[in-house]
Amino acid sequence: MGQQFDLLKVRLNEISDVNHAASLLNWDQETYMPNGAAQSRSEQLGTLSKISHEMFTSPTTAKLLKLAAAEETTMKNAKKAAIVNIAKRDYDEAKKLPSEFVAEMARVNSQATHAWIDARRQSKFELFAPWLKKNFDLARRAADYLGYTEHIYDALLDQYEPGMKTSEVTTIFTDLRDQIVPLVHAIVANKDRITDDCLHGQFDKQVQEDLAKKVAAQLGYDFNRGRMDYTAHPFCIHFAIDDVRITTRIDETMFNTMFFSVMHEVGHALYEQGISHDYDRTPTGTGCSLGLHESQSRMWENLVCRSRESWVYFYPQLCEALPVFKDTPLETFYKAINKVEPSLIRVEADEVTYNLHIMVRFEMEMAMLDGSLKMNDVPEAWNAKYKDYLGVVPENDAVGCLQDIHWSNGLIGYFPTYALGNLISVQLFDRIKKDIPDLTDQFKYGEFSALLAWLRKHIHQHGRRYLPPDLIKRASGKNLSAKPYVAYLKAKFGAIYQL
Amino acid sequence: MGQQFDLLKVRLNEISDVNHAASLLNWDQETYMPNGAAQSRSEQLGTLSKISHEMFTSPTTAKLLKLAAAEETTMKNAKKAAIVNIAKRDYDEAKKLPSEFVAEMARVNSQATHAWIDARRQSKFELFAPWLKKNFDLARRAADYLGYTEHIYDALLDQYEPGMKTSEVTTIFTDLRDQIVPLVHAIVANKDRITDDCLHGQFDKQVQEDLAKKVAAQLGYDFNRGRMDYTAHPFCIHFAIDDVRITTRIDETMFNTMFFSVMHEVGHALYEQGISHDYDRTPTGTGCSLGLHESQSRMWENLVCRSRESWVYFYPQLCEALPVFKDTPLETFYKAINKVEPSLIRVEADEVTYNLHIMVRFEMEMAMLDGSLKMNDVPEAWNAKYKDYLGVVPENDAVGCLQDIHWSNGLIGYFPTYALGNLISVQLFDRIKKDIPDLTDQFKYGEFSALLAWLRKHIHQHGRRYLPPDLIKRASGKNLSAKPYVAYLKAKFGAIYQL
Repeated sequence: MGQQFDLLKVRLNEISDVNHAASLLNWDQETYMPNGAAQSRSEQLGTLSKISHEMFTSPTTAKLLKLAAAEETTMKNAKKAAIVNIAKRDYDEAKKLPSEFVAEMARVNSQATHAWIDARRQSKFELFAPWLKKNFDLARRAADYLGYTEHIYDALLDQYEPGMKTSEVTTIFTDLRDQIVPLVHAIVANKDRITDDCLHGQFDKQVQEDLAKKVAAQLGYDFNRGRMDYTAHPFCIHFAIDDVRITTRIDETMFNTMFFSVMHEVGHALYEQGISHDYDRTPTGTGCSLGLHESQSRMWENLVCRSRESWVYFYPQLCEALPVFKDTPLETFYKAINKVEPSLIRVEADEVTYNLHIMVRFEMEMAMLDGSLKMNDVPEAWNAKYKDYLGVVPENDAVGCLQDIHWSNGLIGYFPTYALGNLISVQLFDRIKKDIPDLTDQFKYGEFSALLAWLRKHIHQHGRRYLPPDLIKRASGKNLSAKPYVAYLKAKFGAIYQL
Repeated sequence: MGQQFDLLKVRLNEISDVNHAASLLNWDQETYMPNGAAQSRSEQLGTLSKISHEMFTSPTTAKLLKLAAAEETTMKNAKKAAIVNIAKRDYDEAKKLPSEFVAEMARVNSQATHAWIDARRQSKFELFAPWLKKNFDLARRAADYLGYTEHIYDALLDQYEPGMKTSEVTTIFTDLRDQIVPLVHAIVANKDRITDDCLHGQFDKQVQEDLAKKVAAQLGYDFNRGRMDYTAHPFCIHFAIDDVRITTRIDETMFNTMFFSVMHEVGHALYEQGISHDYDRTPTGTGCSLGLHESQSRMWENLVCRSRESWVYFYPQLCEALPVFKDTPLETFYKAINKVEPSLIRVEADEVTYNLHIMVRFEMEMAMLDGSLKMNDVPEAWNAKYKDYLGVVPENDAVGCLQDIHWSNGLIGYFPTYALGNLISVQLFDRIKKDIPDLTDQFKYGEFSALLAWLRKHIHQHGRRYLPPDLIKRASGKNLSAKPYVAYLKAKFGAIYQL
């Protein structure tokens, strides 16, 4: 039995293989591809994306989905059902957007990205403004195709965080902002209590790389099913559950740049490496949502690797690799890697201020969507919000409203998932600490496998089987809220800054 | 006008993109892929090969080919005709082999390759014998599907060297053997006249790599449209005319291993980088045949980089990179890199003995095909021929009849192209020296661009536009013969060994 399912699975496997081949083309483009190949590579990516889309939205797939779904009602196999259901959900979504519209979006987004690169280089927002308008117009049309009941933003957010509502995000973010802004002010008033001088110096590239890889392996990243390369911007990408790669970048004068970005990507990679092989080569075989994914990267980066306990284990290794640290007490180092400082650039922000960067973007996306914010007024609005929430003002648009690639790429409704990831990470961690009372003590002697096993069981293995809100509820026992995160920040940074 | 052609070209472009994506999957598998990904990678390669085959042999492609061919007769555009004609030729070939047969071949070849790996590791030919039989049975069936008039081997050879006949190869090889075997004997009798001691030592990996890359660039290899990586076996692979990569390997104790294998692959790469962009993303946009391809690799490796003139330019660079060579006179070094020594391993053979390795394989393939050589007798026949032609006998099958992957992979009819490449290289070079009288003098001051320009004009740009025998005739003015190569060997090695 299960013949219809088997036929569907062959189809999904082939589509997945095409998508993963495209991912390898992308990985190669960022890592090793010679510059001269740019044009041919974009043609290859276009072709594979077209083939994958045609195969997935074809009448054959529709028929196989229908037959497998009918068969499934008699089979009651939860994992097979997860494969059929997710494929069906993706199929329905894909059919909502007409092919010509998808092609138009791809073309405009690509042109907009080139305009953005130019605008950022020259720090001239006006070069980008007309493209930003085009992208928001397209986003509005996409939302209409996708459909929504409460808020137009729901349709966009749902692409990245299925099941999450804009109203919930607004509630959570309002809560968060009301608590974090005063905390930031209190920290800024006492900023002299911490220095991160010890993190600046001259740290050999190979030594940093070796240390980062060693720690990555200690956390549980399987290098036999992954590898690490250098790119301009770090990322995690997979071509199979058994081929999950990370990238990093190096700054020989600042310790954090490589180390914490590696641990962040390792968090993503542990998720992908932990998905059940039953879901390999199907749409179910990847992370549940961007927010859930970010919860994993932030948990390993911040809750594990920026904890005092972990450095009891890591610090001797660091001092051996980079003996200059022998002159710095562990406690000084611990505070240094947790220094809080309101700044202009999102990707360099600390745990306390990070979410404020996201709120600026979320509020502006809403305003641009409903037309209350005109494109020409974006820089002014951006700068005003940064002054209001973070107390800093960009000296130019390159480090202001032009800093992120997302809007140029048509990724509208995406930013909130970064903040949701932070919130989910702490809400899950609180639950794990209840299940494993000595969890953080284990970190002191390099024991991370209990944490990983918990995540494997409750999060990783399921892939996209559950909707994000359901998975969060199942795993943490509660609906998502800002409370655990705010409590975590107040406790940790209140202690560090003696507030 | 040309609408039918344009439609065909879009189709060919997409198929080419899928094939090049598969090539990148292969490249990654050999260079950077983690071990754990082996299974998923072979599934991905299977899927892309299936999709490409289905697209190419579909009724849609057939119809587009027919309409474009009809349109072409009224258009008389030589380059467009070359695209239509080669696509038509490939289509006709592809349709001759039933899909089930192709799948059976792929499956058996893959199992045979695994058996060969095992057999070679244990040096037990009997483990491989049954698979060798299966592969030759399949080759016979393939030949029947493909068709032939004179000799069954013609059908197999034609896959790799279109238009070349077995009878011609036999004539050329007989000629060659009659002249080379006595030359080898004369050299062996005077083998003490040359030592290659200077090539053995301790040569730093990075220094070797930097030197090889520098020389590769001096020859004309464009690193902006290529790159070099490390693999177990060196190769050249392309994903576009603007993305042609080479690989190499390192032996820190023997100078030749990296240097000359890089220049060999650079020869292949210069060919692919020099093809007209009009042929990009079509079946016409690659080298004309394996023999022509090998003529380019061997020309740059041997006729250029093993010439006395080139080392007038390279030697100071070598001495600067590896100062130990300052103690060795250029003339000693020149003779060392041209040392002749009958040996067991084809890929390590010198210019004089190399073709004898090929003849052994060619003669045995013929005998296995017509049944006059039984599989169980292969090792004995192999060893007898090595003793006869080269005067050496393998101590075991691993370094004897199990040394090459080709037969396990179903590549039967392939070996002669290596020897043909050597012959073509000299026949072309003789012609180039007539067109550019001071050609080799130019090498003395690092001027290789006139040679490259000649090859670009007469060989490279055309891709697969002409049949190999026609291209050889057009470019060299003559049909292929063994004479130029024999004359070259006698002159060069007669002088070196003072015969």
